[in-house]
Amino acid sequence: MKRIAILGSTGSIGTQTLDIVQHASEKFQIEALSGGYNSQLLIEQVKKFHPKVVSVATKELAEEVSKNVSSSTKVLYGEEGLMEVAASTDADLVVTALVGSQGLKPTMAAIEAGKHIGLANKETLVSAGHIVKDAIRRKGVSLLPIDSEHSAIFQCLNGENRSQIAKITLTASGGSFRDRSREELEGVTVEQALQHPNWSMGAKITIDSATMVNKGLEVIEAHWLFDLSYDQIDVLIHPESVIHSFVEFVDNSVIAQLGNPDMRVPIQYALTYPDRYPTPTNRLDLAAIGKLHFREMDYNRYPCLRMAFESGKQGGTTPTVYNAANEIAVARFLKGEITFLQIEQIIELVLQKHESHSTPHLDVIHEQDIWARAFASSIVF
Amino acid sequence: MKRIAILGSTGSIGTQTLDIVQHASEKFQIEALSGGYNSQLLIEQVKKFHPKVVSVATKELAEEVSKNVSSSTKVLYGEEGLMEVAASTDADLVVTALVGSQGLKPTMAAIEAGKHIGLANKETLVSAGHIVKDAIRRKGVSLLPIDSEHSAIFQCLNGENRSQIAKITLTASGGSFRDRSREELEGVTVEQALQHPNWSMGAKITIDSATMVNKGLEVIEAHWLFDLSYDQIDVLIHPESVIHSFVEFVDNSVIAQLGNPDMRVPIQYALTYPDRYPTPTNRLDLAAIGKLHFREMDYNRYPCLRMAFESGKQGGTTPTVYNAANEIAVARFLKGEITFLQIEQIIELVLQKHESHSTPHLDVIHEQDIWARAFASSIVF
Repeated sequence: MKRIAILGSTGSIGTQTLDIVQHASEKFQIEALSGGYNSQLLIEQVKKFHPKVVSVATKELAEEVSKNVSSSTKVLYGEEGLMEVAASTDADLVVTALVGSQGLKPTMAAIEAGKHIGLANKETLVSAGHIVKDAIRRKGVSLLPIDSEHSAIFQCLNGENRSQIAKITLTASGGSFRDRSREELEGVTVEQALQHPNWSMGAKITIDSATMVNKGLEVIEAHWLFDLSYDQIDVLIHPESVIHSFVEFVDNSVIAQLGNPDMRVPIQYALTYPDRYPTPTNRLDLAAIGKLHFREMDYNRYPCLRMAFESGKQGGTTPTVYNAANEIAVARFLKGEITFLQIEQIIELVLQKHESHSTPHLDVIHEQDIWARAFASSIVF
Repeated sequence: MKRIAILGSTGSIGTQTLDIVQHASEKFQIEALSGGYNSQLLIEQVKKFHPKVVSVATKELAEEVSKNVSSSTKVLYGEEGLMEVAASTDADLVVTALVGSQGLKPTMAAIEAGKHIGLANKETLVSAGHIVKDAIRRKGVSLLPIDSEHSAIFQCLNGENRSQIAKITLTASGGSFRDRSREELEGVTVEQALQHPNWSMGAKITIDSATMVNKGLEVIEAHWLFDLSYDQIDVLIHPESVIHSFVEFVDNSVIAQLGNPDMRVPIQYALTYPDRYPTPTNRLDLAAIGKLHFREMDYNRYPCLRMAFESGKQGGTTPTVYNAANEIAVARFLKGEITFLQIEQIIELVLQKHESHSTPHLDVIHEQDIWARAFASSIVF
């Protein structure tokens, strides 16, 4: 019986993680959940999975949850609650499915408490890869990727000698505006941007798919997860998202992981690694799909991806600032304050003004994150 | 330094194996070669690789080779010579690249002599899978597949628990007549049949690709290599031969091995397993390829594949007879005695008349092999 805590249980990854747990309830026990602002869904989850501890965003929400669940579940709130869910339960594995840079602190706390990490929060490694990797090594815990691309690479590396990797390729569907030229991106609406061709995901990550920031964050994450230089990481447009990513070895042999676009496969793999068990997903039928397409990544079409590589190579606080600028820019786009193409302009302006600090401590990362957000919020077109 | 003997060094797999050895001469030493009737090429190989022992088909050829090479290479001939190359040298690994059922006896001798086997001869497992597997276990040696499909599956299984395989899929280019209907196969010529779309191979295997007998033999071989039931083995048409084969696990995750069609990659993998080193091959460029196609296997279009599955399921001497009938039928087609579609008719007639012996000893296999050849030779249309 594996004991699991989920940070962000009411989000897309969180709910799919619970779906996996429900389908294999003999294998897993939910120790703790954190649910942000969605108290109604969290209440349902508590009734179904009986965690010992849950946490929500505010005191008011905590009171509401308390009234609706059994007293055997302790209800906490705020950052303190989040940290307790992350680090103070009997969980063996903590799934970190919080959106954005808020994931860093509780993930670090979970690692320091000796928990294995199922990592669905990209920003943790993007902002603090050097600190997280060091803690992972020091505590001897596993860092199991949940993102479909990183899970694919992780699976392709089973039984292989990592020093014999030539390069890895992350596939990219191309997002909701794949078939539009840059000119045609002028004036696209929020509604259009939220139509992702393959994956059903949250709003932030769907926009990040369209700008290719999501792939950029994945590139930086892959650099840390697999100890690869940026020259060993490639991105390929693959509209069907059937090949989730692949590894090319020094002998020119390529190992790829494939499947239908369904996050529950990589989620379960992180929960059951190194074993595999049936999932409540559909089998891949290549004959029914018929064709798979590939085309080279165009870094002029997707400048946010180019900036991600540049930020990653520069290192230090630059990836943090790249990510923070993007978070603000996407929020401003979703609120209708800026146009789609201004997302990349904001990132570019913030990166231009930023002075990078190398191998920063967490407080410097935090400080630069705040600076980048403030500056990104202040930019007027 | 790995010491290698090659059975069939002048054939397609043999020469490509030597190409690999030449490109990594610091890693390999050629102990022994057997070269059949191609004495000229064998003489060149001896001059380049300085084996201690070589063998050719006849006494006359042996005398010819002797005159042309240094006396430090012992020159043998006939079955005795072949057996010495297989089993009586200091080789660590024997590459069995003989064509057809003649591969069985020397492969068994090599296993009994404690050699690891690089298996490129399908018929060994097809005819005597139960005997070979038993000897492999008893002697504790490795059976490393060289065929591109089986090497692909073997690579996909690295670090995986074999009990968690749902099924494997062998891809098939469809051969030289992929886009012809059955009606259009009437009257095709030998020259047409020898045009394989992707792989440069010997004549026998190119015809076997067009009839799908080659895939049928691979299915039976896969059954033995990976301990899978026939219901766990699937075949998919994939014209580009870029995905060499794949494994579907119980969680619906699929691991595939990809590459350009170049046998030197699987050959080298068998020589260096579990390590990988650079090969003198081209890197796979999916963006340049652009599209991969897949379509369901049509067992009515390819009755030889259906008969292979049926033969495999029946087991005993049936796969031997399937293979023997095909060897004769292909030889008769290449000589212009029969039409292309009569290849499958011969196999069918021989299988109909055959009375299968279960778990046969080698002498029974041999006897049934001879019977099938005689009968297949005697069929007149």
